Amino acid sequence: MAKQERAIRTRRAILEAAGAVFDEHGYTSTTIAMVLERAEVTKGALYFHFPSKESLAQAVLDEQVPFGAVPQQPCRLQEIIDMTFVVGERLLTNPLLRGSVRLTVDQATPSGVDHSGPFRQWGERLMVLMEQARERGELLPTVEPRDTVDLLVGGFAGLQLMSRALSGRADLGHRLSVLWGHILPSIAVPGLLLGLDSKADRGARVLASLDLPAS
Amino acid sequence: MAKQERAIRTRRAILEAAGAVFDEHGYTSTTIAMVLERAEVTKGALYFHFPSKESLAQAVLDEQVPFGAVPQQPCRLQEIIDMTFVVGERLLTNPLLRGSVRLTVDQATPSGVDHSGPFRQWGERLMVLMEQARERGELLPTVEPRDTVDLLVGGFAGLQLMSRALSGRADLGHRLSVLWGHILPSIAVPGLLLGLDSKADRGARVLASLDLPAS
Repeated sequence: MAKQERAIRTRRAILEAAGAVFDEHGYTSTTIAMVLERAEVTKGALYFHFPSKESLAQAVLDEQVPFGAVPQQPCRLQEIIDMTFVVGERLLTNPLLRGSVRLTVDQATPSGVDHSGPFRQWGERLMVLMEQARERGELLPTVEPRDTVDLLVGGFAGLQLMSRALSGRADLGHRLSVLWGHILPSIAVPGLLLGLDSKADRGARVLASLDLPAS
Repeated sequence: MAKQERAIRTRRAILEAAGAVFDEHGYTSTTIAMVLERAEVTKGALYFHFPSKESLAQAVLDEQVPFGAVPQQPCRLQEIIDMTFVVGERLLTNPLLRGSVRLTVDQATPSGVDHSGPFRQWGERLMVLMEQARERGELLPTVEPRDTVDLLVGGFAGLQLMSRALSGRADLGHRLSVLWGHILPSIAVPGLLLGLDSKADRGARVLASLDLPAS
């Protein structure tokens, strides 16, 4: 294994360990020692990549939006729907994503860490897709993309939070399906409504399709 | 002042101080000493009312739903709308409500405190109004009240959280207005839509009407 590749793997192992520890203990109670023990790396390796707890938290936050990658679809609104379900599904199993989301929503994350960054980054990502949806004639003329995008980002944050508190996120797919069922008639042109898939198991199906070998 | 009345005032002063400290520092970093200093009461008085930090947090959480009290309206859906705007407006100024909401959404609140209680209590409160709205013919026949209520509670939680992170809650009224603009066409019978008020300043206007003397 080349030296650079090893460094990338070590960095990733530290990030995943840090995500898990931040998810379980929150920013304030997390210590570098806890991350070291979980990651099974040396202190020197950790400080080489991350000079402080703040920098570790920032890196965990920066990893959040890539978890929303989804396959391209004929309809941009379907891609936006898919992002919410895929992130919801990945929250069930991925400690790095869970830790990143906890740092975003916990008020305890210190001001030296840009914990509101993911809200803005999700917003920018969704705005690109929403503008494409508009150009393709998928949206009703009354839609203000910025408002709708902020509603989706904020609404998702709260639904995953309530779902975690009440069911350990087991009902998150259903809650996202309810969100889309209420919102889509206000944003999509009527001809699209029946063809869009926002069923509760959408996330699992999209992720399963990603595991298939490219044909 | 009667002894009982004094005890009630002392308890309230402690709760308000605790709400402010929990809002600023979160559960983990809050100490009884910080609450004592803020409330300007004796240690004995505090422990008489609240034997532990957990019991203090629980009492702050239990105060949350009463902040949603709104005047009766001809239309139950308008009362539901008003609850969201009034709570949003009160979040701007009331430290006890802010602390209570922080304890609800922060994952750090320990399991000995029922921090998911407010989610359930808001849900129960809104379900009563939603069932009345159904009986009065305000809702489309496709509405599942439980699903819609959970969407409102979870959506509100996330929108206030994002609004706090991005604008110190200054844009919360606008975000709530956007929420209702997207959701109302999916739940209210068409004849009601124009008459329902979900403008961004609805909370301020409802609160102002409460300050008027009863005529």
